[in-house]
Amino acid sequence: MPHIRLAEGLPGIRGLFAFRPETAKPLCDLAEILLHAPGTLSQAERELIATYVSSQNDCYYCQTAHGTIAACHLNGDEKLVRDVKTDFENAAVSDKLKALLAIAGKVQRGGKNVLPEDVERARREGATDQEIHDTVLIAAAFCMYNRYVDGLATWAPPDPSFYRERGQQVAREGYLPIPANVQAAQLGQSRT
Amino acid sequence: MPHIRLAEGLPGIRGLFAFRPETAKPLCDLAEILLHAPGTLSQAERELIATYVSSQNDCYYCQTAHGTIAACHLNGDEKLVRDVKTDFENAAVSDKLKALLAIAGKVQRGGKNVLPEDVERARREGATDQEIHDTVLIAAAFCMYNRYVDGLATWAPPDPSFYRERGQQVAREGYLPIPANVQAAQLGQSRT
Repeated sequence: MPHIRLAEGLPGIRGLFAFRPETAKPLCDLAEILLHAPGTLSQAERELIATYVSSQNDCYYCQTAHGTIAACHLNGDEKLVRDVKTDFENAAVSDKLKALLAIAGKVQRGGKNVLPEDVERARREGATDQEIHDTVLIAAAFCMYNRYVDGLATWAPPDPSFYRERGQQVAREGYLPIPANVQAAQLGQSRT
Repeated sequence: MPHIRLAEGLPGIRGLFAFRPETAKPLCDLAEILLHAPGTLSQAERELIATYVSSQNDCYYCQTAHGTIAACHLNGDEKLVRDVKTDFENAAVSDKLKALLAIAGKVQRGGKNVLPEDVERARREGATDQEIHDTVLIAAAFCMYNRYVDGLATWAPPDPSFYRERGQQVAREGYLPIPANVQAAQLGQSRT
């Protein structure tokens, strides 16, 4: 049960967005820029970084939601998403993404863990300053989103299939906040 | 030395804001709502939560910058800021703020650490749902800001007096992003 009174039927961070629309706006804007807006890292790569960090933080809602979105960008390849979470160094992703995931994993444990050699490895594999910056900020941001979702004990539907419809929508349309009136109407209709 | 090429002379997160103005906007908007906009928790209380979490994350730049802003809101009481960082349960703050700082400390270690009894304690001391929500989100957000600042090895001036002028400005005016042209002009003038 959530630690505060949230609208029923809205899982994870979505219930928190409805509770406090003022903070929902910058939180969605940040996710939109980092994960969905045009960039030199693909949307799949950025969602894999978010999913990996969320799995390291043991946040079921975020790793399932973003893992589903990553799979949407990967033509449904859920196995690759699982492989990245469990052992990215041996997953079928580029050497550049492996180097960026290594940086993200260090950020998850604390910013000071990132060493010059981690950054040199990423550069050697072709990562730009902005890609390194965005990797650090995606990892840092999910250390926030994960703590926000779990720190208030929000509801996370256990069935992964629950996340598919919304995941497809986000993969397509991005993270712009859903206006409160639309959200209320959806909630009335479907309780999802 | 920062892990990526940042403008010289802008410390901590300010160099990162100049590097990537797109993400600076939502990051500043979030800080403005959580720490400076009108709310039932005072600005001093909210800055103390931010400072405490930053000290638990061992982020020198953020704990010094926000500790300075907190002291500005407390008529210069830097001792109280130090007391909160080292032993808030015995600091001269309200029982409600102690309960909220206890929640913030748990969020810093991971969202799942927050237990119903932690939230019950805060409620018993008069905390509202929104105050509990904002405490969790401030703590979570500083787990992001701290990792962002340290994960890219930004420059943190060691002298605490460096932080005073800017701290007074933020305490007064809040976290609205400084337009890039003004920032460039400041940089040219003062290299701070």
